[in-house]
Amino acid sequence: MRFLVIGDVIGRTGRRAVKEVLPSLKEKLSIDFVVLNGENLAHGNGITKPTFEEVITAGVDVITSGNHTFDKKEVYTIIDDERLLRPANLPPLAKGKGFNTYEKNNKRITVINLMGRVFIGIPLDCPFRTFDEIYNKVKDTSDYIIVDFHGEATSEKQAFGYYVDSRATLVFGTHTHVQTSDERFLPKGTAYISDVGLTGAYDSVIGIKAPQIIEKFITGMPVKYEPEEGRYIFQALFLDTEEKKLKRIQIKEGESYEL
Amino acid sequence: MRFLVIGDVIGRTGRRAVKEVLPSLKEKLSIDFVVLNGENLAHGNGITKPTFEEVITAGVDVITSGNHTFDKKEVYTIIDDERLLRPANLPPLAKGKGFNTYEKNNKRITVINLMGRVFIGIPLDCPFRTFDEIYNKVKDTSDYIIVDFHGEATSEKQAFGYYVDSRATLVFGTHTHVQTSDERFLPKGTAYISDVGLTGAYDSVIGIKAPQIIEKFITGMPVKYEPEEGRYIFQALFLDTEEKKLKRIQIKEGESYEL
Amino acid sequence: MRFLVIGDVIGRTGRRAVKEVLPSLKEKLSIDFVVLNGENLAHGNGITKPTFEEVITAGVDVITSGNHTFDKKEVYTIIDDERLLRPANLPPLAKGKGFNTYEKNNKRITVINLMGRVFIGIPLDCPFRTFDEIYNKVKDTSDYIIVDFHGEATSEKQAFGYYVDSRATLVFGTHTHVQTSDERFLPKGTAYISDVGLTGAYDSVIGIKAPQIIEKFITGMPVKYEPEEGRYIFQALFLDTEEKKLKRIQIKEGESYEL
Amino acid sequence: MRFLVIGDVIGRTGRRAVKEVLPSLKEKLSIDFVVLNGENLAHGNGITKPTFEEVITAGVDVITSGNHTFDKKEVYTIIDDERLLRPANLPPLAKGKGFNTYEKNNKRITVINLMGRVFIGIPLDCPFRTFDEIYNKVKDTSDYIIVDFHGEATSEKQAFGYYVDSRATLVFGTHTHVQTSDERFLPKGTAYISDVGLTGAYDSVIGIKAPQIIEKFITGMPVKYEPEEGRYIFQALFLDTEEKKLKRIQIKEGESYEL
Ligand SMILES: [Fe+2]
Ligand SMILES: [Fe+2]
Ligand SMILES: [Fe+2]
Ligand SMILES: [Fe+2]
Ligand SMILES: [Fe+2]
Ligand SMILES: [Fe+2]
Ligand SMILES: [Fe+2]
Ligand SMILES: [Fe+2]
Repeated sequence: MRFLVIGDVIGRTGRRAVKEVLPSLKEKLSIDFVVLNGENLAHGNGITKPTFEEVITAGVDVITSGNHTFDKKEVYTIIDDERLLRPANLPPLAKGKGFNTYEKNNKRITVINLMGRVFIGIPLDCPFRTFDEIYNKVKDTSDYIIVDFHGEATSEKQAFGYYVDSRATLVFGTHTHVQTSDERFLPKGTAYISDVGLTGAYDSVIGIKAPQIIEKFITGMPVKYEPEEGRYIFQALFLDTEEKKLKRIQIKEGESYEL
Repeated sequence: MRFLVIGDVIGRTGRRAVKEVLPSLKEKLSIDFVVLNGENLAHGNGITKPTFEEVITAGVDVITSGNHTFDKKEVYTIIDDERLLRPANLPPLAKGKGFNTYEKNNKRITVINLMGRVFIGIPLDCPFRTFDEIYNKVKDTSDYIIVDFHGEATSEKQAFGYYVDSRATLVFGTHTHVQTSDERFLPKGTAYISDVGLTGAYDSVIGIKAPQIIEKFITGMPVKYEPEEGRYIFQALFLDTEEKKLKRIQIKEGESYEL
Repeated sequence: MRFLVIGDVIGRTGRRAVKEVLPSLKEKLSIDFVVLNGENLAHGNGITKPTFEEVITAGVDVITSGNHTFDKKEVYTIIDDERLLRPANLPPLAKGKGFNTYEKNNKRITVINLMGRVFIGIPLDCPFRTFDEIYNKVKDTSDYIIVDFHGEATSEKQAFGYYVDSRATLVFGTHTHVQTSDERFLPKGTAYISDVGLTGAYDSVIGIKAPQIIEKFITGMPVKYEPEEGRYIFQALFLDTEEKKLKRIQIKEGESYEL
Repeated sequence: MRFLVIGDVIGRTGRRAVKEVLPSLKEKLSIDFVVLNGENLAHGNGITKPTFEEVITAGVDVITSGNHTFDKKEVYTIIDDERLLRPANLPPLAKGKGFNTYEKNNKRITVINLMGRVFIGIPLDCPFRTFDEIYNKVKDTSDYIIVDFHGEATSEKQAFGYYVDSRATLVFGTHTHVQTSDERFLPKGTAYISDVGLTGAYDSVIGIKAPQIIEKFITGMPVKYEPEEGRYIFQALFLDTEEKKLKRIQIKEGESYEL
C-alpha cells in the first residue's frame, strides 16, 4: 500500500498547492491513500465546508486536525463527516470523532488523530493510553494504522513513536509547520517522522506573513495573523509499505524535484 | 495619605459595584487617591472609552491594566489618556505608557503598572529591572510610589514585593481575580498584598459565568466567556500611610460590612 | 463533624508550627478530622518517613500532596501508608493512591486528592472526570467527601468547586502557598476555598528564603531553594458541617488570634 | 568562508561522534570555522571542563549553549573561557557572556548565542532587541555574524530569521534535538535553519533512552534521564559564503554519505 500524508495546509496558498500538486503526484507515485492535516485550511485557522471540499476534491481521503479544529464555527456543519477527524484524546464530550476505519483497495485503513500535551494549552487525555484503547478496538479489523500526532515537543512525539512501534504502520507529526528530517523506520518497523511540515506560502513564518509575527514579538500587543501568499511549498511524506520505502517530499512552486 | 486600590473589575456588574460602593466608601474612609485595575471593564475583556469614563466618574484617579489591555480596539482612542496605564514592561514599541506621576493634596504620587512573566504568554521585559529604571527616574520627584503588579505566580509577586521593599509605598497584585489574605507591611515598610481580588459578580468563576468555564474544561472546545451578573462583590485594599494601617475590603451586595 | 484542613506545610518551620499549634487548636475547636497538604514537608520539597510521622503524631489524620509528592525518593517507603494520598488524576501507573475512606466517630470520610492541569507541567488525567469516577464509587459509602484540589489557576479551582457543588462536602485548594479570602458555601452547599495557604516561615516568599527566589528571577541561573526559618504562620480552614460554619484561620507565632 | 555548525551534542555518544567525524569532515569540506551547541555535552545536561576540552580538541572553535548551560556546577570553572558562550539575553547578572568576536583567516567572526522565550521557562530579555544591541556594537568590526538561536517554537525562530535577514550571515536554531529541512537563504541573504538537530545516539528519543522518556509520560512520576548509547548520528549545517552553498549534513555511524 502506498500512503501520502500532507502537513498542515495553510490558507488559500496551501489549498492551491494541494490542487496543483496532488493529482499528478498521486499518479506518479501510484498513491493509494492520502491523509492531510487541515486545521489551518480556512484562512490560516480552522476548517470550513468549502475549504474541506476543495482538498477532498483534489484527492484527499481523510482530513485530520489539531488545536485549531474548532476555530471557525462553520466546522460544525461537517464535523460528523466521516472523512474529518479531530484529536481522539479530546475529552469525550468534544464534538466529532478521533479515529475511523476506511476501505481502499480491499484493505482496511484506520486513521487515528492524536494531540500532544506538552506546551499545548488544551485539556487533553493521555495520548499514549488513548492510542492503547483505540488500538485494542481496531487491531483485528485494520490492515494499516496511520497516526497523525499533532504536537509541539519533539520528546513527546518521538517517545510516542517508540511507544507504538510495531503497532502502528505510520506515525507522522504535525503542528510545527516545519518539516523535520528524522523520517525512519523505528526498530520494530513503524514508519515515523516528527513533523511533515508546511504546505503553504514558502516566504513566510510558518505560513503566516512574517511582518505580522515579528510585530507580535517586538510589540507585545495583539496582532491579527493572515496567511502569506505567493510561491508555495508542498511538504509531505510518502510511504510504500511493500517496498519499505519512506521518503520526505518538498515541492517548491516552479522548481523541479525528484521523487 | 489614604489610598484605595480596587482589584480587576469585571464587566457591567463590576462597574455597577464601583458606582454603588466607591463614592460613599471614599467619604467614610477619607480616601485621597484611588487606583483600579480595569483590564476587564468592557464585557470582561478590555477597556472602552465609555467603560473607562464610567469608573473615572465614580471617583477613580488612575486605571491600570494587564494582559487584556488591548483586547478591544476601542482602547486606542484612550490609550494616551494620562489616567490609563498598561504594564510598563511591555516592549518599548507597545502603545501607551506604564507609569505616571499624579498630584493630589500637594503630594506627588507615582503609579507604576507591571506584569509578571511566569505563566503569562506575552513577551515582557524583566519587571524587576523595569522597576529599577522607573524608580531611578521618579524617586526624587515622588512622595508615594504605588505598584500594580499584574501576575499569576505567587512566588513572583512576593519576590517582587521583597525586591522593592522600602522603595515602593504599596505593591498590590492583580490578575487572579481572587483576593489573598497575605496583606502586610514587609520588613522595610512597603505595604503588600498578592492579589486585591475581584470586583464583579459574586456567584461566578472569577467573574465569568461558571457553566461556560466548566464547559471549556470538560469539552476541550472553544467556549465564549461572558461576565456573570447578579449580586456583586467589591474587593479592594485600603492603605493609610500615616496611621500605618492596611486593610482588605470585601463588600458583598446587600450585606453589611465593617471598615 | 468538625474538619480542619491545613495548607502546604513548608520544611522544619512549618512542621514546628503544626506541632505547636495543632494539639491545642484541635481541643479548642473540638476538631474531629484533620487533613494536611504535606508535599513540602521535607526541607521544602517532598516527604520522608520522619517528617510524615512528625505531623501525624501532632494530630493529623490524612496527608495529601501534589506536584512535589515524589521529589524525595524516601517517599517510596511510605507511599502505601493508608494515610498518605497523592493526586488521584496522576496516570494509573503512578505509585500510591489518590483517595481513601476513613472512619472517625462512626462516620465515613472520603478524602480525594486531585491536581489541576493549568500551568502544571505534569501529564494528568482530567480532574473533573476523575472526581466523577471516584464519586460514583464512594458516594454510597461516604458520609463526607473532602477534596484537596492542588492547583495554580483560580479559574480551574473555582470551576471545579461549582462542578462538584452538592456532591463534595468541602473543596479546598492548595499549591500557591498563599491563602485566599474567597471561602464560602457554594450555591448548592459545598464548602469551598481557592487556597488554604501556607504553614511555614512568615517572612519568606511562599516559605522559601526571599533572596534565593529573587536571585533566580534577576539572574536567570539555577538557584538552590531552602525553606526560610524564624517566626511561623499557621494557615488552615475550619468547617463545622452541623453549624454550617466555615472559617479561615491564620495564626502568627507570638500573636493572639480569635477563632 | 566555510562554516560548520553542529546541533546539540548529547553525552558520551555525541562526543564520540564529534571526535570521529569532525576532523575528516573539516578536511573534506575545507571548513574554516566550527560552532557547536554544547549544553548537553556532560551526560546529557550541562558542560564540564573535560567534555568542553574534548570537543575543542576535536576541532571546534566556539561552543554555544542554552537552557542547560548551568546544569552542572563544574561549568563555573570554564564560564569565562572566551570560546564558551551562553545566551546573550539572559539577565545582565548572569555569569558568562553571550557573544564574542573571533579571528580566523584574517576575518573577524562574531558569534551570538540567543534563546527564544516561547515555552522556555527562564526569565529572558527580548532576543530581538538583544540582537539589535549587539549588532550595533559589532557590525563595524565583524566580517561575519553567526547566531545560535536556541529555542522551541518554530514561529519565534523563523520570525527571528526574517528580523535579522541581511544583518546576520547565518542563523541556526538549536534545542529541539531534531533537524529540520527548512534550510535556506532568506530573501535578503541570511542563511537560515530552524534546527540543526542532534549529535548523539540515533536510536533514542532526542538523545535520551526512549524507555525513560516514555516512563515519564505514562507514569507522571519523576524519572532520571540518561543519554542513550550505541550507533551515533552526527547532524550539522555547512555554509560556504562565497559559493552561496548551504547544506544540511546527516552522518549515521557506519553508513556512507554524500556531501
Ligand atoms: Fe497547524
Ligand atoms: Fe496546530
Ligand atoms: Fe483580570
Ligand atoms: Fe489579567
Ligand atoms: Fe506546595
Ligand atoms: Fe504544589
Ligand atoms: Fe539541548
Ligand atoms: Fe535546550
